[in-house]
Amino acid sequence: MKQLKDFTKEELAAFEADAKKRYDEIKNSGLKIDMSRGKPSPEQIDIAEKDFEKVYPITDYMSKSGMDCRNYGMLSGIPEAKELFASLLGVNEKNIIVGGNASLELMYSFIAQCYTHGIGGNEPWCKQGDVKFIAVVPGYDRHFSIAEYFGIKMVNVRIDKNGPDMDKVEELIKDPSVKGMFCVPKYSNPDGYTYSDETVIRLAKMKPAAPDFRVIWDNAYIIHEIYDTGDELLNIFDEAKKYGNEDNFVEFCSTSKITFPGAGVSAIAASDANIKEILARLTVQIISYDKMNQLRHVRAFPTVDDLKAEMKKFAEILRPKFVAVLDVLDKELDGLGIASWHKPNGGYFISFNVDTGSAKYVGELCREAGLTLTSVGATFPYKNDPDDRNIRIAPSYPSVDELKAAAELLCVSAKLAAVKALS
Amino acid sequence: MKQLKDFTKEELAAFEADAKKRYDEIKNSGLKIDMSRGKPSPEQIDIAEKDFEKVYPITDYMSKSGMDCRNYGMLSGIPEAKELFASLLGVNEKNIIVGGNASLELMYSFIAQCYTHGIGGNEPWCKQGDVKFIAVVPGYDRHFSIAEYFGIKMVNVRIDKNGPDMDKVEELIKDPSVKGMFCVPKYSNPDGYTYSDETVIRLAKMKPAAPDFRVIWDNAYIIHEIYDTGDELLNIFDEAKKYGNEDNFVEFCSTSKITFPGAGVSAIAASDANIKEILARLTVQIISYDKMNQLRHVRAFPTVDDLKAEMKKFAEILRPKFVAVLDVLDKELDGLGIASWHKPNGGYFISFNVDTGSAKYVGELCREAGLTLTSVGATFPYKNDPDDRNIRIAPSYPSVDELKAAAELLCVSAKLAAVKALS
Repeated sequence: MKQLKDFTKEELAAFEADAKKRYDEIKNSGLKIDMSRGKPSPEQIDIAEKDFEKVYPITDYMSKSGMDCRNYGMLSGIPEAKELFASLLGVNEKNIIVGGNASLELMYSFIAQCYTHGIGGNEPWCKQGDVKFIAVVPGYDRHFSIAEYFGIKMVNVRIDKNGPDMDKVEELIKDPSVKGMFCVPKYSNPDGYTYSDETVIRLAKMKPAAPDFRVIWDNAYIIHEIYDTGDELLNIFDEAKKYGNEDNFVEFCSTSKITFPGAGVSAIAASDANIKEILARLTVQIISYDKMNQLRHVRAFPTVDDLKAEMKKFAEILRPKFVAVLDVLDKELDGLGIASWHKPNGGYFISFNVDTGSAKYVGELCREAGLTLTSVGATFPYKNDPDDRNIRIAPSYPSVDELKAAAELLCVSAKLAAVKALS
Repeated sequence: MKQLKDFTKEELAAFEADAKKRYDEIKNSGLKIDMSRGKPSPEQIDIAEKDFEKVYPITDYMSKSGMDCRNYGMLSGIPEAKELFASLLGVNEKNIIVGGNASLELMYSFIAQCYTHGIGGNEPWCKQGDVKFIAVVPGYDRHFSIAEYFGIKMVNVRIDKNGPDMDKVEELIKDPSVKGMFCVPKYSNPDGYTYSDETVIRLAKMKPAAPDFRVIWDNAYIIHEIYDTGDELLNIFDEAKKYGNEDNFVEFCSTSKITFPGAGVSAIAASDANIKEILARLTVQIISYDKMNQLRHVRAFPTVDDLKAEMKKFAEILRPKFVAVLDVLDKELDGLGIASWHKPNGGYFISFNVDTGSAKYVGELCREAGLTLTSVGATFPYKNDPDDRNIRIAPSYPSVDELKAAAELLCVSAKLAAVKALS
């Protein structure tokens, strides 16, 4: 297809008229779709619930440790849940803490701990003057919100299909005020990129100037494949150990998108030293997390294979949704040179880039016609996409028909924005 | 009975020999009892579980708001859970946030917020130099641990049957570096005192010099009566409103000792202004708490009366345990002038005071004979009981027979310690 920039004046006018007509039609159709968050659909959650129903009623709440999961105790989690997460993340059980329903809360509290008490025996971040974090962009808005809340200055590093720009990362970590980095290493939010082996190895080798540098390794989509063949990610701790750098990484994950978004189980994997410091804080913060929910989870999903089997069922629901959106994008925009996107093998998002630098305007056009997207800019720190380019598409919740309509609206909006940008 | 200090030399020798003989007998009997924490017994938890079983299986996880409790959302809790806690605490639903399984975590995070971000638009506590808290003593060790963790200096104020020494409190709050106070206003931990109306009114009237003074009103034992007639506590917000002081108080409670110690539901009650600031932080910290557990709770216990009915069943289990310990204390020590204690109408503890100032020694004697008590001193900040007097007895977990044996051991140990102190 001819690129839009090469269109004749007449072609462009016809293109615009067509887009405008379709936009108005959609706008007048009473469309109302929310694609702002990566919210699993009820169909998906119903499947998860069925798996729990199989193990109900639970009449025995004893953990294999002999302790009563209903009572206080077992701060780091019940042994069977620690085993399950250890197996999922490929680490030793002693390097696991099983948390509550929210890995976000585990990340927040870890960063809060570094801020108020320091990590690795170093001064608290709040007493070190400027503290900076590397923000891999586009990225997850809730990571950026935590850093912003604690006044941590974010420095953008671009991601591509291999992961973050490691040349830039290796340069930035020479600055001792750079204290950490947010990574979603598999099916990155929003692009769906998985870090290449070379990227993981370069991250594992890092010797940051700051002794209290910590990577928030948010493995949120660890088994969240959409197709039969998923991406492979190296085990960060296996690699980091080779260079004595295990302390640089703290890994987080949860079953929020495996079982229940609001009532799953989360976990931390970390080095002996980091686990010890985190537990010292948790001893003050909480008596124990909800172990009845931990037990429900391991009864319903005793092994990682059981979790993966669940994800295969979810993929059957998610794949057609991703395909629906991607097909419309291909059909409407391929070759025009006005937008670009990646076809992820898993995760929860499609990252849509308006190459004419008019993402905000596209967002406005969509909103006016009834489609709520993730706030344009939210995939960057301080909600500021310097190129006004990125829009995150979250296809998990709406139906396939809704997604087709939403994607069409997005495309005609992008076309209108492109014509405007060109003229 | 004659006080020990009035015993003749011969009487004292016989008293000591008898106590020593009984101590050795108990020590050699292989006693092994843990009374260190206020842990509900399995019998109690079984009762709670039965109440949940009545509502299982839950096939409909829709909140009355029409939202799916399994999915993300509803940061401040599901409406029906907010109603239940609003009714329990006697406040408006808009002044409630329903949390996860741990009110301790809610308190920790609130204090952390004041520390890192300030409250009421004031400077963060971490930037204000010395920050002090009033510690009502004896008190709850986990409150003191939070303050200690954040470097908040604690100033002891004694409690008696009317609550904290209000003359002292009113003096201390003239100091703008005094930022708050920990209160367990009903069935205080460990004494089981309930603040008198006069005390609550004086607290409600306080005009502290610090604009960011906050009372942690930990209403942990709000309906935790042991007898048919319980203590009455004034509603702190009703009183505080009369003086425009609602912002001074943040109330916490949970069902940890109503349903499941490790898997209950917690809540915050606070003024509009405090709720707004807490929610602004929670928006960054967590997507939502476990709403499936909130729903389970309101299905099993739709009203406060249902919760109170549960507590009546628990009282049947707890009362004989309290009575067993108190009977032994009365029988062994009444009138000797060597120890004192209060008979609480509810809560989880009996506070035992070794009036000869040898609590640590009594703790050691007990431990050597197989009885684990709450670490002596733990009921004071920095684990330092200046009078070496207070021992917290937690009778909820052991059986009645175990409690009798434990109380006897405690009494003979107190006797031996008293003889030692006198000589």
